[in-house]
Amino acid sequence: MPSRKTSQSEIIWGIHSVLEALNAGRRQIHEVFVVNDKTARLSDITGRAAARKIAVRITSPDELKKLTGSGRHQGVAATVGPLPLVEFSTLLDRIESTPSDPLLLILDSVEDPHNLGALVRTALCAGVTGIIIPRDRSAPPTPAVSRASAGALEHAPLCQVTNLVQAIKDLKKSGVWIIGLDRQGKTSIYDTELTGPRALVIGGEDTGIRRLVAEHCDFMCHIPQAGRFNSLNASVAGAVALYEAFRQRQK
Amino acid sequence: MPSRKTSQSEIIWGIHSVLEALNAGRRQIHEVFVVNDKTARLSDITGRAAARKIAVRITSPDELKKLTGSGRHQGVAATVGPLPLVEFSTLLDRIESTPSDPLLLILDSVEDPHNLGALVRTALCAGVTGIIIPRDRSAPPTPAVSRASAGALEHAPLCQVTNLVQAIKDLKKSGVWIIGLDRQGKTSIYDTELTGPRALVIGGEDTGIRRLVAEHCDFMCHIPQAGRFNSLNASVAGAVALYEAFRQRQK
Repeated sequence: MPSRKTSQSEIIWGIHSVLEALNAGRRQIHEVFVVNDKTARLSDITGRAAARKIAVRITSPDELKKLTGSGRHQGVAATVGPLPLVEFSTLLDRIESTPSDPLLLILDSVEDPHNLGALVRTALCAGVTGIIIPRDRSAPPTPAVSRASAGALEHAPLCQVTNLVQAIKDLKKSGVWIIGLDRQGKTSIYDTELTGPRALVIGGEDTGIRRLVAEHCDFMCHIPQAGRFNSLNASVAGAVALYEAFRQRQK
Repeated sequence: MPSRKTSQSEIIWGIHSVLEALNAGRRQIHEVFVVNDKTARLSDITGRAAARKIAVRITSPDELKKLTGSGRHQGVAATVGPLPLVEFSTLLDRIESTPSDPLLLILDSVEDPHNLGALVRTALCAGVTGIIIPRDRSAPPTPAVSRASAGALEHAPLCQVTNLVQAIKDLKKSGVWIIGLDRQGKTSIYDTELTGPRALVIGGEDTGIRRLVAEHCDFMCHIPQAGRFNSLNASVAGAVALYEAFRQRQK
C-alpha cells in the first residue's frame, strides 16, 4: 500500500535529524550540506552519506542558516524527499495482525512543534505501534518537528487522519480501548489496566482533549500530583503515561 | 536560617512566572508591568497584584520586549527580588525531620535552561523534598528557567551547592540512597526500590552524569527502551524516574 506524502521536497537540519534520516532510510536524501568542520558527529554523517552515494556539499554556517531558516542547524542540513506517513488502513491492518498488544498514541490539538517532537521521541522509545494526529488541530510533521524529536520523526510510524473521532471509532471496532489523559480524569493512570490493545489520547498544552474526542474515550485518567502546584507539561504527561503502559507490559 | 540570594533584583516575565511568583509569595515583587489587554489571565494577575498593594504599570508590547529581552513575555513582566534558595544545611534538617521518606532530585550538568525548567516543573508536581544543583555545571535559576518551568521555580525547594560530591556524601550520612540514571545503568528503574529516602541523579542531555558523581551513586539505573531508537530527552528521563518513585510511594 503506498504511503501518503507530506510534500514533494523539504530541507531537514540538525545532527540528529540528518543522521536519523540516513539511519532510517525511509525518505530519499538528495544532497547533504555540511560546514567544513571535522567533528566526529559531522564526519559520521558525511561518511554514511558517501557510503550511500549521496552528494555532500561543503558550505558555510551563514549559507546553512539561509538554507534552513534556522540558526540551530548544528552545521548540517539535507534536501530530502517527503516524510513517509502510514495510511490509517495500514495501521489498522498492523493492529489486527501484530502478535503483541498494540499501543497507540493519539495526539489531539498538540499544536506546538516542540511538544509534538518531544512526544514522538518518547513514543518511539516506548515502542508504540503508531502515532495518530489529526490533519488540522495539530502541528504538521515538519523538519522543525524532526529537529525537536532528535530525529525520532524519521523512524516514527506516524498517521495523519482527517476525522479523529471516526478514527477512534474504527480503532474501537478493532478491539482497541481508548484512554484519554486529563487533569480531571476520574481514575489514576496507576489504577488503569494499560496492557491489552490500548490507545492513549493526549491533548494540547492549553486546550486539553476536545470535548467530542473525550466523549469517545472509554476511560478518562489523570496522573496523580503532589502538592499545590498541579501542572505537568503535555509532553511530560504523555511520557509518564506511555512509560506506565510500557512498565505494565513488561511484567 | 537565612536563605541564600541569587542576585539583588531581576525581571521575570510570562503569565505563569508572574502569577506563580504572586501565588508563592516567596520573593518580593516591586512592580508589575502589563499590556493594556483585558484577557482573563492578565486581569487575574493585576487583581492579585492590586490586592497585595503592588504597583501595576500599563505598558506596550514593545516596551515589555525591551524590558525583558524576550519576545515571549505574553504581555506581562515584573521586577522582583532575588529567588530564595534553600541552604543545604536546611535541606539536611528537613530530610532528617520529615515524617515521610524524602525524595530528592540532583541535577548534574543540566546546562540547558529549558531542560532545567522542565525538570523543576515535573519535580514539583511529583512532590520532591528538594532539588540540588551544582553552582557551576548547571544552568543557574534565572528568569528564563522560571519561564520554562511554567512558574514552578517560584515554589521550588532549590538548593545550589559548591561541591556536588560532598553533598552526596552528606546525604548518604543522613540515610539517603543515591540512584544515578544512565543509559548504561545496570538495573532497570522498574526493578529498583524507590521507596525509602532516595535521591535521583540526572545528568545533562549530552554529557550525562560526570564520572566522579556516578562513582558516588549507590546504584546506576536505566529506563528500559523499546526498539532501535534509544534516546530519551534528559527532562523526559527525569520525569519517568520521578514518577516511578511517586508511583511506588503511593502503594
